[in-house]
Amino acid sequence: MARGKTMEVGETCPMNGGNGPYSYSQNSHYQRQAADAAKTMIMDSILDKLDIQNLPSNTLKIADFGCSVGANTLQAVQNIIETTKHMHKTLQLQQTLEFQVFFNDLTGNDFNTLFTTLPTPGEYFAAGVPGSFHSRLFPNATLNIAHSSYSLHWLSRVPEEVMDRESPTWNKGRVHYTKNLKVFEAYSAQFKRDMEGFFNARAQEIVGGGLMLLLLPGCQDGFLPCETSVSMQYDLFGSCLMDMVNIGMVSEEKVDSFNLPMYLTSPMEFRELIEANGCFIIERMENFNPYEDEDLPDFQVLATQFRAATEGLTSDHFGIKRREIMDELYDRFADKMAENTHLFDMKNMKEFIIFACLMRKNVHFNAEKNQN
Amino acid sequence: MARGKTMEVGETCPMNGGNGPYSYSQNSHYQRQAADAAKTMIMDSILDKLDIQNLPSNTLKIADFGCSVGANTLQAVQNIIETTKHMHKTLQLQQTLEFQVFFNDLTGNDFNTLFTTLPTPGEYFAAGVPGSFHSRLFPNATLNIAHSSYSLHWLSRVPEEVMDRESPTWNKGRVHYTKNLKVFEAYSAQFKRDMEGFFNARAQEIVGGGLMLLLLPGCQDGFLPCETSVSMQYDLFGSCLMDMVNIGMVSEEKVDSFNLPMYLTSPMEFRELIEANGCFIIERMENFNPYEDEDLPDFQVLATQFRAATEGLTSDHFGIKRREIMDELYDRFADKMAENTHLFDMKNMKEFIIFACLMRKNVHFNAEKNQN
Repeated sequence: MARGKTMEVGETCPMNGGNGPYSYSQNSHYQRQAADAAKTMIMDSILDKLDIQNLPSNTLKIADFGCSVGANTLQAVQNIIETTKHMHKTLQLQQTLEFQVFFNDLTGNDFNTLFTTLPTPGEYFAAGVPGSFHSRLFPNATLNIAHSSYSLHWLSRVPEEVMDRESPTWNKGRVHYTKNLKVFEAYSAQFKRDMEGFFNARAQEIVGGGLMLLLLPGCQDGFLPCETSVSMQYDLFGSCLMDMVNIGMVSEEKVDSFNLPMYLTSPMEFRELIEANGCFIIERMENFNPYEDEDLPDFQVLATQFRAATEGLTSDHFGIKRREIMDELYDRFADKMAENTHLFDMKNMKEFIIFACLMRKNVHFNAEKNQN
Repeated sequence: MARGKTMEVGETCPMNGGNGPYSYSQNSHYQRQAADAAKTMIMDSILDKLDIQNLPSNTLKIADFGCSVGANTLQAVQNIIETTKHMHKTLQLQQTLEFQVFFNDLTGNDFNTLFTTLPTPGEYFAAGVPGSFHSRLFPNATLNIAHSSYSLHWLSRVPEEVMDRESPTWNKGRVHYTKNLKVFEAYSAQFKRDMEGFFNARAQEIVGGGLMLLLLPGCQDGFLPCETSVSMQYDLFGSCLMDMVNIGMVSEEKVDSFNLPMYLTSPMEFRELIEANGCFIIERMENFNPYEDEDLPDFQVLATQFRAATEGLTSDHFGIKRREIMDELYDRFADKMAENTHLFDMKNMKEFIIFACLMRKNVHFNAEKNQN
C-alpha cells in the first residue's frame, strides 16, 4: 500500500463524552485555566467593541465553536452574557435584549450530556449545532458574537502526504511533526486550508460589526513549533506507542499511519491568515501564559486530560476496544512524562495562548442589517 | 400518604432513543402514516398562506416541536422546505433564501442519534433545542414556521388530583381516564393549562404572518374521549399491570399512582383553546383518519410501538431495571389486544387526527419586522 488510509477527524472523534473519569467534561481544567486567564480580555473586548446600541435585532446571538461538554463552554457563554447585560444596564438602553446561544461541535460530540448541564431556562435560549466549524453552520449574517476556545488547533484531518509511504513527508514511527520539517510544512498547509474554511464561513455568518473572540494554543514567533513542550510531549506519546509495538501490543503499521491532527500556529502566521481572508479587522491580539507560576504538573492528571481529548481518535485508529490497552498506553505516557521533567521547565516553554478579538468588517453592514 | 408523588413528565421520559428494536426511531410507523396522510394538507397550507414575498429576513426559520428521533421529523422538515423552495422558484424571487431548522424535544431526547441522521450539510442549517414546548424556547419573533406532529397530546404532567387518595378523582387501579369522568375532567384541565403555555410561548416566538402546522390525535366531537379505541387500549394496558400485581411482579400502590400523561382533545375543545389564546387565526382545521382501509393491525407491532413511546415512563415509575419484566408487560399487552379485536373495529373508531394550520396574527407585524 503506497498510501495509507487518509485519516479524517470528520465527525466521529470529538472529546470523550459523558461525565466519567476519562470524560472531557471532568478533564478540561487546563483549558479552563486558559479561559479564566482570558476572561478579562474577553470582557474588555466586548465592552470596547460591541456596538450594543446598534444591534440589528433585539436578540444577541452567540455561538461557541468547538464547545465540547462541561463547565468551560457554559462559563464562557455566561461571561459574554453578563458583560453584555452590564453594558445594556449601564447605557440604560430601553429595548429589551434576549440571548440565543448556539453550542457547536462535531456531530459525534455528546450533546445529550451537554444539554443536561444547561442553566435554568430563562437565562438564554440554547441550541446545539452539530457539524464541522471549518464549513458553514449558520445562515447568512445571523451571529453577533462567535467564540472559540482551545478548538482551532484541531485540524479537520491529518494532511494526506504524511501517510504516503512514497513521500519525503511520510511520518514513520512518529505521531506529530516534531522531527521533520517537511511534515511540519504539511501540517501548516492543512492549518491554512482549515482556517480559510473557518474564516470564510464565519465571515458569512457574522453580522457587520459582530465580534469573534478566539483563544488557541500557539508557539512564539521565531521558534519552530516542534520546539514547544507540547510537541515534545506528543513525541513521548508516540514513543509509548512504539514501545507497545516492540512488545507486540499494537501494530507498527498502525503507528506509522497514526498522526495527531493538532497544530500550533504562531501569532505571525495566524495574523497572516486573518489578513488573507480580509473580512475581519484585528481589534486586539495578544499572547499570554496562564501557567507561569506553577510547579511541575501532576503527570497522571496531565495524561488523563490528554486521554479525554484523544482517546476516541486513538481507539478508533488502532481498533482498540479493550480498556486495559488504553489504560496501559496512557499510564505509560504519564510515566514517560515524569521521566522527562525538563520538558516542563518554564525556560523551555515556547508555547502560549493566543487571544484575538476580530470584528466583522462593516462594508456590507447596511445590506446585512436589512436582511435581519 | 394522602397524596401520591406528583408525576411530572419533566425532562426525563421522552421516546426511547437510539436505533434498537424498541427505539422510537424504529417504531413510529403509525405516526408516519398520519404524517404521510397530512402531507398534502401541510403543503397546501404553506402554498396558500405563507407570504414568502414579505419575509422579514432571508432566512426561513422552521421549528419542529416534539421531534423525537427518526425519519418522521426529517421528512416533515423536508416537505416544508421543498414546498417553500417550489414557491420561491415559481414566483421567480430574486433574493436568496436559506433555511434554519430547529429540532425541539425534551432534554432527555436522544439528540446524539438524531444528529447522526441529519441530511448532508447544505440542505439546511440544523440545530437541536432541548426543553419543554409548554414554555419559551426561542427569542421573540424569530420563527417563520412551527410544526408539531403527534406530540401535543403528551401532557407536561399527570394532573395532581388523580394521584390524591382522598380525592374523588383518585384513579386507583387504572392508568388513564377511561372509566371516571372526574379523572377525565382533571386531564382536560391539565391539557388546557399545557396548551395555554404552548400557545403563549409560540405567540411570542412566531413572527406576524408566520404559520403553525399542527397534527395531533383527537376524539370526535360529541363523544367522550374514553369511547376511543386508544383509551380502551390504555385500559387493557392498565389491566396487564393489575394482572402483574396479582402475581406479585409489581406493587399495587405503584399501579395506583401510575397514569399515562396523554390526552385526546376534540376539535371543538382545541378550537376553543386556540381562540382563548387569541394570537392566532385558524386558517384551516380538519380531521382525518389515515387508517380507514386497514385490516386488523399486528398486535405485536402495536405493542412495540407503544413500548417505544412509554417504556421510559413505565420503567421510571415502577423502578424496573430488568428487561424481562418489561418484555413480560408489553407481551401481555400484545396478547390482550389480540383477545379484544372488537376495539379495532372501524365502526367503533371515535378517534382521528386533527390537522390545524394557524397563522400568527399580524397586529404587531411591523414592530416585529423591525426587530428582525
